Amino acid sequence: MSTFSHPDFTAPRFAEARDARFVPAPADGVLPQDFFSTTNLPTYVKVGGAWRMPREPRMDATIVLDDRGELWVREMRNVGKGDRVAVGHSEDGSEGIFVYGDAFLGDSAEGEFKFMTSEVSREKPIDYALMARLLIDERERGGYPIWVTGPALVHSRARADMTWFIGNGFVGALLAGNAVAVHDIEASIFGTTLGMTGSGEATSGGHGLHMRAINQVRAAGSIENAVAQGIITDGIMHACVVHGVPYVLSGSIRDDGPLPGVYTDVAEAQDAMRRHAVKATMAILVATALHAIATGNMLPAFVTEEDGSLRELPTICVDSSEFVVSKLKDRGTHQAFGVVTNAQDFMHILRLYVERELDARAAARAATPAAAAR
Amino acid sequence: MSTFSHPDFTAPRFAEARDARFVPAPADGVLPQDFFSTTNLPTYVKVGGAWRMPREPRMDATIVLDDRGELWVREMRNVGKGDRVAVGHSEDGSEGIFVYGDAFLGDSAEGEFKFMTSEVSREKPIDYALMARLLIDERERGGYPIWVTGPALVHSRARADMTWFIGNGFVGALLAGNAVAVHDIEASIFGTTLGMTGSGEATSGGHGLHMRAINQVRAAGSIENAVAQGIITDGIMHACVVHGVPYVLSGSIRDDGPLPGVYTDVAEAQDAMRRHAVKATMAILVATALHAIATGNMLPAFVTEEDGSLRELPTICVDSSEFVVSKLKDRGTHQAFGVVTNAQDFMHILRLYVERELDARAAARAATPAAAAR
Amino acid sequence: MSTFSHPDFTAPRFAEARDARFVPAPADGVLPQDFFSTTNLPTYVKVGGAWRMPREPRMDATIVLDDRGELWVREMRNVGKGDRVAVGHSEDGSEGIFVYGDAFLGDSAEGEFKFMTSEVSREKPIDYALMARLLIDERERGGYPIWVTGPALVHSRARADMTWFIGNGFVGALLAGNAVAVHDIEASIFGTTLGMTGSGEATSGGHGLHMRAINQVRAAGSIENAVAQGIITDGIMHACVVHGVPYVLSGSIRDDGPLPGVYTDVAEAQDAMRRHAVKATMAILVATALHAIATGNMLPAFVTEEDGSLRELPTICVDSSEFVVSKLKDRGTHQAFGVVTNAQDFMHILRLYVERELDARAAARAATPAAAAR
Amino acid sequence: MSTFSHPDFTAPRFAEARDARFVPAPADGVLPQDFFSTTNLPTYVKVGGAWRMPREPRMDATIVLDDRGELWVREMRNVGKGDRVAVGHSEDGSEGIFVYGDAFLGDSAEGEFKFMTSEVSREKPIDYALMARLLIDERERGGYPIWVTGPALVHSRARADMTWFIGNGFVGALLAGNAVAVHDIEASIFGTTLGMTGSGEATSGGHGLHMRAINQVRAAGSIENAVAQGIITDGIMHACVVHGVPYVLSGSIRDDGPLPGVYTDVAEAQDAMRRHAVKATMAILVATALHAIATGNMLPAFVTEEDGSLRELPTICVDSSEFVVSKLKDRGTHQAFGVVTNAQDFMHILRLYVERELDARAAARAATPAAAAR
Repeated sequence: MSTFSHPDFTAPRFAEARDARFVPAPADGVLPQDFFSTTNLPTYVKVGGAWRMPREPRMDATIVLDDRGELWVREMRNVGKGDRVAVGHSEDGSEGIFVYGDAFLGDSAEGEFKFMTSEVSREKPIDYALMARLLIDERERGGYPIWVTGPALVHSRARADMTWFIGNGFVGALLAGNAVAVHDIEASIFGTTLGMTGSGEATSGGHGLHMRAINQVRAAGSIENAVAQGIITDGIMHACVVHGVPYVLSGSIRDDGPLPGVYTDVAEAQDAMRRHAVKATMAILVATALHAIATGNMLPAFVTEEDGSLRELPTICVDSSEFVVSKLKDRGTHQAFGVVTNAQDFMHILRLYVERELDARAAARAATPAAAAR
Repeated sequence: MSTFSHPDFTAPRFAEARDARFVPAPADGVLPQDFFSTTNLPTYVKVGGAWRMPREPRMDATIVLDDRGELWVREMRNVGKGDRVAVGHSEDGSEGIFVYGDAFLGDSAEGEFKFMTSEVSREKPIDYALMARLLIDERERGGYPIWVTGPALVHSRARADMTWFIGNGFVGALLAGNAVAVHDIEASIFGTTLGMTGSGEATSGGHGLHMRAINQVRAAGSIENAVAQGIITDGIMHACVVHGVPYVLSGSIRDDGPLPGVYTDVAEAQDAMRRHAVKATMAILVATALHAIATGNMLPAFVTEEDGSLRELPTICVDSSEFVVSKLKDRGTHQAFGVVTNAQDFMHILRLYVERELDARAAARAATPAAAAR
Repeated sequence: MSTFSHPDFTAPRFAEARDARFVPAPADGVLPQDFFSTTNLPTYVKVGGAWRMPREPRMDATIVLDDRGELWVREMRNVGKGDRVAVGHSEDGSEGIFVYGDAFLGDSAEGEFKFMTSEVSREKPIDYALMARLLIDERERGGYPIWVTGPALVHSRARADMTWFIGNGFVGALLAGNAVAVHDIEASIFGTTLGMTGSGEATSGGHGLHMRAINQVRAAGSIENAVAQGIITDGIMHACVVHGVPYVLSGSIRDDGPLPGVYTDVAEAQDAMRRHAVKATMAILVATALHAIATGNMLPAFVTEEDGSLRELPTICVDSSEFVVSKLKDRGTHQAFGVVTNAQDFMHILRLYVERELDARAAARAATPAAAAR
Repeated sequence: MSTFSHPDFTAPRFAEARDARFVPAPADGVLPQDFFSTTNLPTYVKVGGAWRMPREPRMDATIVLDDRGELWVREMRNVGKGDRVAVGHSEDGSEGIFVYGDAFLGDSAEGEFKFMTSEVSREKPIDYALMARLLIDERERGGYPIWVTGPALVHSRARADMTWFIGNGFVGALLAGNAVAVHDIEASIFGTTLGMTGSGEATSGGHGLHMRAINQVRAAGSIENAVAQGIITDGIMHACVVHGVPYVLSGSIRDDGPLPGVYTDVAEAQDAMRRHAVKATMAILVATALHAIATGNMLPAFVTEEDGSLRELPTICVDSSEFVVSKLKDRGTHQAFGVVTNAQDFMHILRLYVERELDARAAARAATPAAAAR
């Protein structure tokens, strides 16, 4: 994973640029006409002659200067009347705002004839060993990997693997929809998902089982209560509750029920998701176009370390078709690394590689007593 | 399109069945343990010895008997404490509830070797002439075709065709998300969608244009105001406003803005969608998995005519991949007819066939003066 | 896997049926007008009052009665002038030919509302444990599993897994195209496939490497020579050569080179493939539409055991998209079980499960000394 | 469509470069070790101090200097022992061979944040008007557009549209496989394709109809005879025969029959295809991965005009999925413009736009008598 240094702001083009201009928002949730529209790339704003990075970066938002002189990236709907909003269309620093695209988007053109240059293809190899090392490194350094998953993960055997990742400390937060929790809980209570058995058979009367699962949890009052009362005894939601891993269940118009705890207001859901996105040091998006793109919109392309240095935010997007990954990139999440495969198989192999890497590290530690003693 | 007669309820299995049993809901939004879970098929409930169909049928809901003796299909979340809810797991009438599956699901097995038997395939022909006749028939009989569309429709030239259908009386209601309206309004104001020109080029600085479009409408206070003030001058939303075609914009966690008028609460959005779904006499679902499946969940598989007779609800689902159509069917919307193609091309050819059929009918009328005089 | 009993030919409809009629072919490769066109289902022909099954069954062919009274299924192009060809359109036995479809195609209709009833979907679980048991059972009983693979298998890490299966006795024959061998040999000589490294990078000058690999093998005269001379030192083709596993490389118009040993005549290639297809007791089709459908066309839906009994021919079709599997079924290979995933991941997990099952069987044998002694 | 000027060969890097080196081929079909492997880009070879372009450019081949001093691009298999073959790995001119990539591959990197930058996506608009103008321009200037089609074109209504293009002079040559002709002829004789009716129903007994169609043509001896004898009365092959449009039917291992005239040897088929590819001034590849990539391999990325100037070879690739188009590009046909849609719809709209453009040009000519008189 790449790390990046900040631009040299002593260069004349930066030194001579004017300060960014701020204009008060004319009404709650309405921005000044020429507001600056953010990207997910490292962005620097000149205030009082100094170039500074706003906090909580994301795309499709704007930059607000608060009363304490702090810069924030804020969604339009969360800007209040009178808030000071950065204006300008230029991203080259000339209007006091600089978007540092080169570092991340790079320079790919070469005018050379090559095969296999597409960015996303099922024909590209998948480096599970690298992903396993990244995940373990995150756990070791206390990182905050967010997992964003669709219901395909639960329809298949991957439910057990996801549960394992939660139980073993690899999940900072789980962002999903009502359906993931519904299928997971149906599986815990009835052993089916949408009435389909673990071997893929549709069962007679099975079409109502997810509704019965929802009803039991609604009767219990919350997922936490349903776990406490022994209604939910295993699986993804159970693991989140017993291991204290935070989760956000965001509502959609496809939802049955919904389960207690689901955010039915999508603006509130976005705010809840973003509280995790701003902390993310890695993102794993599996088998969901809606939630993956929603999260991608909120994620910066980079992690800001405590010492102010930057590194790419590892973003893995898994889907059965090239289209979802390309769409994510087309919506601006250029840093996403696409894995075109079945979610069930992805989870199974990733877990296998993580287990192998853990064994290898344990063996290496055992072989070097000094290191082990540290 | 098939029509169906009701079962013969004088048959012994129906005559001898007991009345359905109803149990009060234990709390708001919580059903009795053995509640009956509905399908989208014709369903009959025995009350006071008579078999009756509940109103507003849909799947994944339950059946409530109100104080006036009327039967309703209600979503779990809309059932109040004490409401009388039908209970039972059997769908064969023995517990007083009969789901008439045979009429619709038919008997497809034959044990005969054939090619090309898959239900959904890009290799199957598309009968645009039939779809055009259905649409015109609906307009002539005063039907209520609902259109459910995704943003792909707006990214491409299909925007003009959709606008044409709205302007010419072929749209009972439009159900879509924030993005459809955002792209459509960006196209009206800036001539781009997500900063992409009509010829498919990404423009410099274009990534902020959809945010600027949203901001202008938020400043105007509503889409209707923005039309009145000349901010939005053409396109899909403009056509809905000036022709008085109702629309529902349902929120999702991917939404930027959102635009004024978008339902951010998904339960409210579902209620708003369903007010149109219960009136639907035809459904056209184009290029959206989320909204298509959400609407499919709310639609019965049939239309109940004023005289009580039933006919299949024509449901057309258009997507670039077989997967979305198969998924819609896997979620129970078995009546969906799948068209595997590009949304832009679908809209263009459908309009062409509708125009031709209109010309042919006008010519036929002109040739029979008596008919024309009616 | 299902087994099937033969029909009861003492039933009047069979006993009273007339003998099949045979008409001489009018010219080489031309059939009599009303020739019987075969399917891949169990088929019985009444000759001299007795119902018999023709040998080497496949679809899209015809039935020939040879001078020794033996019945054969023969492709049109392989029928000679004067050969006696069965005629008739009926498959119900009335004209002396009976196609036993019920046993295999079954009776699937039930008129019951269910979710998840589609035949092929990425949302269905994949039973690797079952596939692993089937493969090992085939090895134990001396079966003949044919593997049909596309080049995606070689682009990715699955090359090592395929090599493992060959080396460990799980491959009766390998059917593939020129490209599989070319990529595999490029990987052995240069470490790349189409110039792409194992980590997915396109290399400078890499576009010519597959041509250089081909040229080296052409210079050596054959793949076998290239192995003997140490040009090819590992991989799939190397394993076939050193383990004596037969392979067929069928040509296509996409081929570069081709490699020595590739059948450039497609009729000869089909004959070579069929020599393995008639022996197949299991078929695994991975990541190739062309070769999978070609092989599917040649395969009966069943295996005829030595005692004359029938069982379903396990046919597994792996592809990244539902479309290829559906197309295979639409071309008549109804028995295919579809696995919608990435070929690389499929191979890796399948091998893992086979290894586990082997360990489990070894452990079970060790625990039961009597059994081990047998 | 872009045009390109040749490099300035007076520049020192070209003037000072050495002549290309040629080495005799060691055996028939075997190249010298360091042979130069071609691309589809404009390529210049320094011979006798002058930079010249070899004739009949294509990728994955080599450059041969014949006895008359002419340079040819030749496939490995068509090089004879002793032929003088260009050697070298450099493409920058330093070894006497220059590949002019910049002109075509351009410089795409900008380090700027944008949406919708993917090359191939169903969300991109399709400019049918431009394609229609290109096709008519080709007809007017006497160009040679080659059409490469898969069987999906025949399964659906597009058969009539393809027939129209052939009949109206828009097809220089048709390159396809056995299946296209088989389905087309089945449609002419029986009204079905693979037994499926025009409205998509599988017919009883229909699985044998394509075999019966093949048998009739084999009995007639050739497609031409079958047209002459009134067996084939309409459709694509009929149009080719009656309008004298050349066609190549290339064999594959999936072929039934095959029909008379199909090249069963794939090397001969490639040679036959290439005789048209070297004349191509435009390429339209519809619904076929195999034939599209095979043809893409043979096509230069450019057309050499009679005056020696170069222009991009318009290459349109139509498929239902992004994958095929991306794969074509990944195999080096970078100039392909992808249209992600259903083949049936593509053909129908393209024809409509061509008809409109023809009407518009006719009207324009009628309005300018002087021009009409020319």
